[in-house]
Amino acid sequence: MNLKLNFQIIFMDIEKILAEKGHYIDKELKKAFPKKGITNLYDAVWYHMGTGGKRIRPVLAIATCEALGGNSKKVVPFAAACEVLHNWLLIHDDIEDGDRVRRDKPAVWVKFGLGHGINAGDLMAQKVFELILSSDLKEKTIFRLIKTMTDTAIKTAEGQAMDMNLRGNDNPTEKEYMEMVTGKTAYYMTVPITGGAIVAGASEKTIKKIIEFGMRAGPAFQIADDILDLTSGKGRGEIGRDIKEGKRSLLAIHCMKKCSKDEKEKLIKILNKSPESTTNAEVLYVKSLFEKYGSIKYARKKAEELIKKAKKTTEGMPPKLGKILIFFADYLVKRKK
Amino acid sequence: MNLKLNFQIIFMDIEKILAEKGHYIDKELKKAFPKKGITNLYDAVWYHMGTGGKRIRPVLAIATCEALGGNSKKVVPFAAACEVLHNWLLIHDDIEDGDRVRRDKPAVWVKFGLGHGINAGDLMAQKVFELILSSDLKEKTIFRLIKTMTDTAIKTAEGQAMDMNLRGNDNPTEKEYMEMVTGKTAYYMTVPITGGAIVAGASEKTIKKIIEFGMRAGPAFQIADDILDLTSGKGRGEIGRDIKEGKRSLLAIHCMKKCSKDEKEKLIKILNKSPESTTNAEVLYVKSLFEKYGSIKYARKKAEELIKKAKKTTEGMPPKLGKILIFFADYLVKRKK
Repeated sequence: MNLKLNFQIIFMDIEKILAEKGHYIDKELKKAFPKKGITNLYDAVWYHMGTGGKRIRPVLAIATCEALGGNSKKVVPFAAACEVLHNWLLIHDDIEDGDRVRRDKPAVWVKFGLGHGINAGDLMAQKVFELILSSDLKEKTIFRLIKTMTDTAIKTAEGQAMDMNLRGNDNPTEKEYMEMVTGKTAYYMTVPITGGAIVAGASEKTIKKIIEFGMRAGPAFQIADDILDLTSGKGRGEIGRDIKEGKRSLLAIHCMKKCSKDEKEKLIKILNKSPESTTNAEVLYVKSLFEKYGSIKYARKKAEELIKKAKKTTEGMPPKLGKILIFFADYLVKRKK
Repeated sequence: MNLKLNFQIIFMDIEKILAEKGHYIDKELKKAFPKKGITNLYDAVWYHMGTGGKRIRPVLAIATCEALGGNSKKVVPFAAACEVLHNWLLIHDDIEDGDRVRRDKPAVWVKFGLGHGINAGDLMAQKVFELILSSDLKEKTIFRLIKTMTDTAIKTAEGQAMDMNLRGNDNPTEKEYMEMVTGKTAYYMTVPITGGAIVAGASEKTIKKIIEFGMRAGPAFQIADDILDLTSGKGRGEIGRDIKEGKRSLLAIHCMKKCSKDEKEKLIKILNKSPESTTNAEVLYVKSLFEKYGSIKYARKKAEELIKKAKKTTEGMPPKLGKILIFFADYLVKRKK
């Protein structure tokens, strides 16, 4: 199978779907978040949600539903809900991590204040369900979508807690890291695909396979994210923000195991400093340690292995669905920010 | 009708229900939040939720369901969800308002950190739906309970945004205040009762009446809360915390309209200071202004009028339901903290 060619075909499909169906998604979002709604609430949501643009998650839901022979119009509210879920989590994450910049702009909590930032996220979490409830689907299907969404958000919150807990840990293991990123991303990354499959009436086996895919692709995404922090900076206004925040990334965990006792002590001291008091020289020192011990290379290899395993789960899936997942896997690790 | 006697009877009923059904609620809560769950997440939830004790909301849901002839066992998951909703909102509210003390103990975000505080609330918001989904009820009924819960939480978030917005307002009106407190409390206060009625299969007319009751009792509760801040301090470790936070309470709004231009300027200057920089002498000055212009008396009268109107909505309701609502109305304004 020529993966490269498939990748291009699917990419074109995605663009086509976005051009064709993008306005349906925006219509749903505008209905859920009236532009003239309460100040510092609905405008805060749009300030954040309007800036993303790619709407990759809704498109994935629609593409999956179509690929499995479903009526894609029926998945639109769920697709929009996935976009809302994603943006709500980012708004709260920025506060939890103390990130002041998102997509090269002030984060919602910086622009609108901490209180409004939390509250806007809380509203969005509810709008996720309001959107799903409005679907033109059988009650049984709506239930299943709600259950899938709730399970996803619970796993994500558990992963987020593990992530924060790990930051105080001076001997973090790769096992702990994998558990954390699986919780934080595996379900959340694939929920649009799972939902699209549910609406199309896919078999239990297929849905199970999609989650298996997520179990590999999710961590791969997170590791790619760890690496991006040292290259593009992920639109957070600076390089090495994860180091300032003391994140126990796969790079940091690998480096801690490989470097000398003195270097480890120095590394942990820098990671444990508050983001504001960490200097750029310290960030560069940590980056040089990562390079010295091949931690970036190690992480890249690990991500590639996971993506390979993720792609392997598509074997035996309906071919059109497999193509979408392969496209998504490549997108996750090849993105620039 | 001898209201006083009924009040006592109902109070005994509530105590009886709590004694009989309390362990069902706790069982549901323990299932949703495993005690040995992830650190800084499940323990944070129990730190907060375990301290309340009264579980008045779940009891209201059960009492309503029983009063309307429903099978009260079936409402238990929803009843527990109401308790989770209440506690989640308090955890996030404390962060949004900068409140460091809750029920005379450090607030969750103070004890576990800001990030874990937000994340614990987010988990609880999802557990609300997980609980409802687990109900042994027809899909149609579960659907309706979820919709009721989502609508409630959306209205509450809108009211919370209005509350925060009002704090920057130097000419707040009573109309704006009423709009804010109606959004913030009317639905949220009555959601256990509405849910209990839905599970019992109550008529649309009855459910509409319950919401009408909430439209009056909710604001009455909030006004009583405004007054309590100057007397018991609501378990927040100090008297006049609302003044420090610059809340535009009904007392402040009334006082601003009645006092002299100079006094108003001074009042607004104090309200607009950060909570940390407001002195106790300034709080006492504001309290004395409220007393001078009869603002506390005015607020008390307003709350009593609203409670009277709330009780009036119970006319024509099934008598047992009416008794519960009358008990609840009295509880709301007569509580000491």
